[in-house]
This record gives sequence, structure tokens and C-alpha cells, in this order.
Amino acid sequence: MKSHWRIGLAGLGTVGGGLVSILAQRPDLSPRGATVAITGVSARNRHSVRPFDLSRFTWFDDPVALAASPENDLFVELIGGADGVAKAAVETALRLGKPVVTANKALIAMHGRELARLAEANGAFLLFEAAVMGGTPAVKILRESLVADRIQSVSGILNGTCNFILTRMEATARGFREVLSEAQALGYAEADPTTDVGGFDAAHKITILAALAFGHAPAFELADIEGIEAVELLDIRMARDLGYRIKLIATAERLNGGVAVSVHPTLVPLDHPLARVDGALNALFVQGTAIGRIFVEGPGAGAEPTAAAVAADIVDVTVGGVRPVFSSRAETLRDPAAVGPGNTSGRSYVRVLVKDQPGVIASITETLAEAGVSIDSFLQKPVEGAGGVPIVLTTHTAPETTIAKAVSAMASLPALIEPPRTIRIARI
Amino acid sequence: MKSHWRIGLAGLGTVGGGLVSILAQRPDLSPRGATVAITGVSARNRHSVRPFDLSRFTWFDDPVALAASPENDLFVELIGGADGVAKAAVETALRLGKPVVTANKALIAMHGRELARLAEANGAFLLFEAAVMGGTPAVKILRESLVADRIQSVSGILNGTCNFILTRMEATARGFREVLSEAQALGYAEADPTTDVGGFDAAHKITILAALAFGHAPAFELADIEGIEAVELLDIRMARDLGYRIKLIATAERLNGGVAVSVHPTLVPLDHPLARVDGALNALFVQGTAIGRIFVEGPGAGAEPTAAAVAADIVDVTVGGVRPVFSSRAETLRDPAAVGPGNTSGRSYVRVLVKDQPGVIASITETLAEAGVSIDSFLQKPVEGAGGVPIVLTTHTAPETTIAKAVSAMASLPALIEPPRTIRIARI
Repeated sequence: MKSHWRIGLAGLGTVGGGLVSILAQRPDLSPRGATVAITGVSARNRHSVRPFDLSRFTWFDDPVALAASPENDLFVELIGGADGVAKAAVETALRLGKPVVTANKALIAMHGRELARLAEANGAFLLFEAAVMGGTPAVKILRESLVADRIQSVSGILNGTCNFILTRMEATARGFREVLSEAQALGYAEADPTTDVGGFDAAHKITILAALAFGHAPAFELADIEGIEAVELLDIRMARDLGYRIKLIATAERLNGGVAVSVHPTLVPLDHPLARVDGALNALFVQGTAIGRIFVEGPGAGAEPTAAAVAADIVDVTVGGVRPVFSSRAETLRDPAAVGPGNTSGRSYVRVLVKDQPGVIASITETLAEAGVSIDSFLQKPVEGAGGVPIVLTTHTAPETTIAKAVSAMASLPALIEPPRTIRIARI
Repeated sequence: MKSHWRIGLAGLGTVGGGLVSILAQRPDLSPRGATVAITGVSARNRHSVRPFDLSRFTWFDDPVALAASPENDLFVELIGGADGVAKAAVETALRLGKPVVTANKALIAMHGRELARLAEANGAFLLFEAAVMGGTPAVKILRESLVADRIQSVSGILNGTCNFILTRMEATARGFREVLSEAQALGYAEADPTTDVGGFDAAHKITILAALAFGHAPAFELADIEGIEAVELLDIRMARDLGYRIKLIATAERLNGGVAVSVHPTLVPLDHPLARVDGALNALFVQGTAIGRIFVEGPGAGAEPTAAAVAADIVDVTVGGVRPVFSSRAETLRDPAAVGPGNTSGRSYVRVLVKDQPGVIASITETLAEAGVSIDSFLQKPVEGAGGVPIVLTTHTAPETTIAKAVSAMASLPALIEPPRTIRIARI
């Protein structure tokens, strides 16, 4: 075993800075007695103001050159992005048989199998605990702790920005745009928030968890993705009246011989643990044949927790015992069979805004009855400033395509002021 | 790397049977391509009726002989008990450098450092994920995932039997003895329930978690242990009226330079996640400097989940990368400094049963005021069949010794029908 590990660190943002601080304080972190130290670094801008002294490290303008440098034994990639320089640098390190630790969810979700092949062909570690739920264990739980179980589903709240925004919308009775601006000012959302609020970040993460849970290759293209941009305060309030909270839920489940992966705003019953996950927290449910149900909750982001997860992966490298990158060797990883919406069933929340005139309720309920969708609950409630009378109903379980057809028929009713809004109800 | 692992399994109870079934179905469980198979077994009674065929395995009357046998490469100990044959067998295997996987919490809590020394001196794995929270990951989270953090406290519900009994007492409004009998009939409690209901099982587990979290030797003798035998239905009801549920909470925390480890019936606020952990579930909170707070909930026992955790440890052995048994090498593990009750503070629930006569409340509150304990809430409520008037109060935070002194003074008041009952209120 190596007694000292020299680390090349590409990316000096908040997580990179957190890692610099952890390793400076605890170079003897590895319980095997090995020491670790950052020796070389690379970042977009050499001259940014940073809370640590860069002169201790060898500077590399090019992260790929850092990954290739014989002056480090382990490469940490905290640049981000599915392609470009992050991917090139990781590939370079793996080709040299150099272990790689990354927090890059997009990279693993989009190119996981290809990188796993490269890592395994060269006998190198490729670890990415920090890519999912920041410092809260998720990857290791699926890859190692539940290795002897048959997982049926994984689902949870995987994007702290969206959960912060939805929590604040409800708490402060403000709309999406306004709360998004607040989140940006607080540093909870990026200047370009699309990756988070569009559901893509959560989709990257659930893609990785699905691959680990079900033993197939990561298949980001399979994910059915819907963000929170269209979630209205009105829906948050009406859902609440019906006993639900709206959360952005990422789910992957075995279904009809395939795997369904999705990210959707979802109504979660108020007494469900996921309904109580507030602010920037993340949470995950794992349902397995042997284990039943495991619930894990913790911080999904933040410099310190995420850097601690990166450091834990570094320790795993120093300890040795390299596993396949996913649940089985990369060469055996197959693409999962997709399960289309035609094969999934569920309950839905449907909200319409109607003109206040006689016969409206009858026409709506008739449309649903004709499509074969039965109603579980129904609520009509005047809401100030809603611009019409909001009517919400929840359906009993029906095929998603049947509900979509019914809603589409409803959309053409003359009493409707705007198209109906449909939101799934959690099956978890 | 070894391509085939022959396993010697001592103990064929429900967990042992579960392991036989998992390994028969999935001999290729290890992602490294190694196969695993049970070859030799040992149990108390060779002729018990079992759902599998013993003739496939070599029978050993003596588990120590099984542990010593060159016909297996990995020893699984599911006998139980801190001493005696389980300990002798584990020591025998470790002395031979043979990896050991065990679910034996008493053994690890009582003899952890000594066994860790033996394991590390011989380069052998000693893994025990199944010893705490059954199939729900806890040991690996503390030993591996949070290795880069500084843990402040771990606390949770670690005994499913006690949690089942307390949940049922509240749900069915029956006393401890009656519900215990039901739990025994359902197989949730042993014929001799002392280990569970006396708090000893939870104390073994929190001792192990404390050692992993704080980097010291397991120190069972430090644990301040109180079981649930004295929890009365009356207290469950009164606590509920005050907004609490009574749970058996195991806690370990850094305090004044030392470590306080305890198991106590505790009042948990109804809106706290631990208050909602029902039935035989287990749950754990970990509070760390970097991570903030992580919550994990899942099944704490059961043949299938526990056997799956044993199997996951077996896979860890096949993968290699042996770590120290605890958070650092056994030779560096020190005894933790104890923190006595004189150094801990908290809030308490105090319940007295008094004669219905004038001046009683004044005498009780005066006693507390004289001792310097201030009252947070006060409830007097007639309860049918209580044999007196129950008065409950909750205190503000005060040193535990101060509260004990006040309660002791209260005990001598002539209006009291029986000694006061004190229960801690959770600080988590």
C-alpha cells in the first residue's frame, strides 16, 4: 500500500475550497496510516480571490495536463459539466490507471458506462459519492450496503434548490419567479437556474441511483423530466387543502420488466416523511425485497458536506479494494428497457380555472367519466386573484395515458379559462 | 484475489437461515466475479427442523472447530452472546488471519478493542454491519461515509422490540406486561426479554456507534442504561397531552471533553422525526460538524434484512481493502473519558400521584423553586383508575443532579401517594 497520496485537484469552487481545508487540517485522514496532500491544482481563473494560499500547490492552466501529471497519484474532478474539459481530464487520468474521485453527476449520468469501462480496463477507482445528495450517503448505500438485496424502487427529493423554492413558495405565499430571485440572492440557485429548476440535476442523480440499484448502465435519455417552473402558488395552496404538499420527486422503479425513471412535481401526502423534508435538504427512499424500506435524509449540497463526501471517497481509494464502478462489471452493463407512460398508472391532481357559470362541474365530471377516470376527491374554492373559479380534483388510479386523454378532452370545454393543470400524486 | 470463498457459518437461527437462502440463490453476489458458498455449519442442535437441507454442508458440533477448519476461508458468527463459544470461535478465526463477519453486538460492544487488535495483527477483516440496526446501514456510514467529518452526537431508536412495545401500549391503551406478552407471542420479544426491554441491547449498539463516531475504544461499562419496564401507560398518556411521545432513545455525544453514552425512555416532541418511528423500525440521527444532520430509518431486525447485511459484509471481504475495525488502528484506540450525570443538563418530565387535598400544587412547586428548578409546563388532569390525582410538569433545562435533588425532596411530601416518576426530555 502507498503510504502517501499526492492529489491533483481540478476545480476550486466552494466544494474544491472545502476539500483544500479538510485535507490541510487532516492529512492523516486515512485510517490505514497513509497521508494525503493536494499537490497540484487547476481552475478557470488563477487570480480569483480565495480563502487559501495557492502558492502551496503547483498550478496547471489545463486540467487535462493536471490529470496526466506524474506529480499526483489521484485525480479529483470538481469542474462539472457532462462534456468538455471535465470529461477529457477524467478520461486522461483513468487511461493512466490513476484513481478518480468526482462530484460530477452530469458526467456520470451521461457517460457512466464508457468511463466505467475505462476505469475497469485500467484497474482504477472511479468514485462519485458527492455526485448524489452531497454529503449524505446514497451511492455507497446502493453500491455496497444493499448489494445483497433486490431493489424495487428508489425515489426522493434530490435537488435542494427546487425543494428550497417550493418550501419558500408555500411559507411566504409568493410565486415561483419571486422566490427564485430570492434563492439566487441567497446563493441557493445559480444565475442560470435551468439545470436545477428544470429538473435536469435531479434527473442526473436519479439516473445514477437507478443504475446502481437495478444493475444496468446509466441511461439519462430514458428519464421523463419535468421541472418546477410551472408550479403555481395556487396549486400549492389547493394541494395543501386536499392534504398534500408539492415536491419535486425523482423516482426510478422496476415496472413490467423494464425501468421507469422520472422527475416530476408530485403531490405527497402531508403525513409522508418526504412531505416534511424542508428547505435545501435531500431525502431518499429505497424499497428492497429483503430490506423493506430505508429512508435517508440529509444535506444535499453545501461546500462542507460535499467536500467531506469527496474526502471519504479519497479515503476509500487509499484503503484499496477496488469494486466495479456500478453494481457489476462495466462490460456486463446493459441498457435498461424503457417503460413508457402507456405502461404506468397512478393517481392525478387536476386543476382547472373556470368561468363562474352553471353546469361547469357537470361538464367536467362527465368528461372524466366518459374517459373512464373516476374521481377520488373534489374541491371548488374561491381564491382571491385567481382570475376565475379554481376547481381541483384527484383521480383514482388509472393509466397515465387515460388520464392524459381525459384532461385533453376537458381542455376543449368552453367554460375553461386556461388549459387544465395536471400533477401526479405520489405512489410511494 | 481469491475467485471462490468457502464460508463457515456458526449459528442457524433465523438470520443464519436467511443467509443460507441468500447465498444459495446468489453465489455470484460479489461484483468482483468471485463466488461464495457455505461449506461448513455449526448450530446448537443438529436435528432442529430447518427449511433447508443440512446435508449439503459439513456439520461441526463445535463452532471453534468450524472457525479453525482449513475447509473454509471466511467465518460467519451468528451464535450471539458476549462471551463463551461465540468469542472463542471468533478469536480462533482471527488468530488464523481468517476474515470474520458477525452480527453479535454484545461481543463487539464488550470485547471490541481486544478483537480489533487480534484482527489487525493478523491482517483479517472483522465486520459487523448487521450488529446495529439489522439491515439498515449504520456501521458503514459512520466508519466510511463520514470518515472526514467530526461527529458531535449519534442518537436514535436502536431496539425494535422496545419500540414495538411502546407503540402498542399507546395504540391499544394497555400496560407494559400485557403488551410484552403479545410481543412474545408474535415473536417480537424473546422468552427472556431482559436484554431488550432492559435497554441492554440498545446499549450494546450505541456503544459500538459511539466508538465508530468518536474514534475511541468501545466502552460498554460507560453506558448509563434504563429500560422500558417502568414506563407506565399513564405516563405515555400524560406525555401525549403535553405534545410528546415516549421512546427508548440511545444517545452518545461529545460533552465537556468526554463522551456521554446513555439509553433512557425519553419524551420526544411529536413533530420530531424520531417520534414518528413506529413499530419495530429503527432510526438514527448523526450530527456532524461538516454534515449537519443525517437521519436514517429502516428495519432494525428481521431475518431477511439482517442476513442481507451479513451478505454485504461478506461481499466487502471478497472485494478486499481491509480497514481498521474501528475508526483508527486498534493500538491507538483509547478509553473515552466518562461524563457523569453531574455534568449533563437537560429538561425533565416529572409525574406525581397525589391525594386530592388543598395546598398540594403549592407544595410541589415550592419544592422545585427551592431547588432552583423552574417549570416549563404544568398539567393536572383526573385520570380514571389512576389511584390518585396525577400531576405532571416539565422543567426548563437544569443540571441532572439538580433535578434529581428536587425530585428527591418532592418524594418526602406527605401528599404523595407514590414516589415521583422522572423521564428525560429529548435534547435532539
